[in-house]
Amino acid sequence: MRNSRLPSVSPEIERLIDLLAKTPGLGRRSAQRAALALLKKRDGLMLPLAQALNEAAEKVKACSSCGALDTLDPCAICSSQTRDEKIICVVADMGDVWALERAGVFRGKYHVLGGVLSALDGVRPEDLRVGKLVERASLPEVREIIIALNATVDGQTTAHYLTERLQGIDVVVSRLAHGVPVGGELELLDDGTLLAALSSRRPF
Amino acid sequence: MRNSRLPSVSPEIERLIDLLAKTPGLGRRSAQRAALALLKKRDGLMLPLAQALNEAAEKVKACSSCGALDTLDPCAICSSQTRDEKIICVVADMGDVWALERAGVFRGKYHVLGGVLSALDGVRPEDLRVGKLVERASLPEVREIIIALNATVDGQTTAHYLTERLQGIDVVVSRLAHGVPVGGELELLDDGTLLAALSSRRPF
Repeated sequence: MRNSRLPSVSPEIERLIDLLAKTPGLGRRSAQRAALALLKKRDGLMLPLAQALNEAAEKVKACSSCGALDTLDPCAICSSQTRDEKIICVVADMGDVWALERAGVFRGKYHVLGGVLSALDGVRPEDLRVGKLVERASLPEVREIIIALNATVDGQTTAHYLTERLQGIDVVVSRLAHGVPVGGELELLDDGTLLAALSSRRPF
Repeated sequence: MRNSRLPSVSPEIERLIDLLAKTPGLGRRSAQRAALALLKKRDGLMLPLAQALNEAAEKVKACSSCGALDTLDPCAICSSQTRDEKIICVVADMGDVWALERAGVFRGKYHVLGGVLSALDGVRPEDLRVGKLVERASLPEVREIIIALNATVDGQTTAHYLTERLQGIDVVVSRLAHGVPVGGELELLDDGTLLAALSSRRPF
């Protein structure tokens, strides 16, 4: 690979590029392009972005109930009167909440674990918001816990662990269906997905 | 296209995503991912990035001689004793300076025009740093001006305009060679490039 460090660049610009390059989605080259574009739009973009970063860093906190990121505590979703408090959808990260909210397919409440169990990365049950989930699941109004974790080994291990922890509580524990993605081609699917889609087949 | 706005997101996070999405290289989805990653690394990345943006916005200026962005004025390249002051390479933008510096193929000085002439975008000669270029070209030590503008219509129009403006000054005006890119395949080249490569052919 060609070295894309820039000689004869001021340390201030170099530092800005370094930090931009650490942002997911931006490689070193695109960080250089971004830095230049920002320097060209100093008042319109660069300074407002700096302020937005500072403001969000200061004000955004994890909701003490569900763990979602918000400036309010409890968060907007937890305190919403229009969302169904009987169903809690358990996700690994805030990004999963956003994915579900974008799709607009879920109108209950969320619980953000803050990751999944992982022997490799050293994530243990006490690193996740499991205790709070058990506490919320025990509330009289809660009827169902939907476990919506990634269909990876770590995600499924975590799902099993949660199912065990939720045993004995009077709630239905469900998980997302496996199957053929809508718009997906059979030819391109892996064996595990095909097996799951076949064994969970449904009558027309 | 699916709407990727997020309902039930706090205005502070929404504003951060909006501004990140305006940065070239980041679309709306990647801006959402970036915002989450930043919120997770508050002290390690988010606050330092805000500070770097503020610092660069405050300190980085266009060099009063060549127009390059630097915290010093004259910039590091203009004031360098080891670079050849006899040759000035004229480029449209700071990104072009970085491209040449990355390649490490040029050891003279630069002149950053700040764009190219464009009837469509309303860029006129007085919007570019042309006067300063003529002034620098007239300095006794300067022997050659290399015009290194993009091989686009606007770039070539600007190159011709500069050649006219530099007429009568005792300097050689040259331009980058057109031809087959190193590693490029003939089959994939456009007619214009093939014609240029053929008519500028050189003996082995």
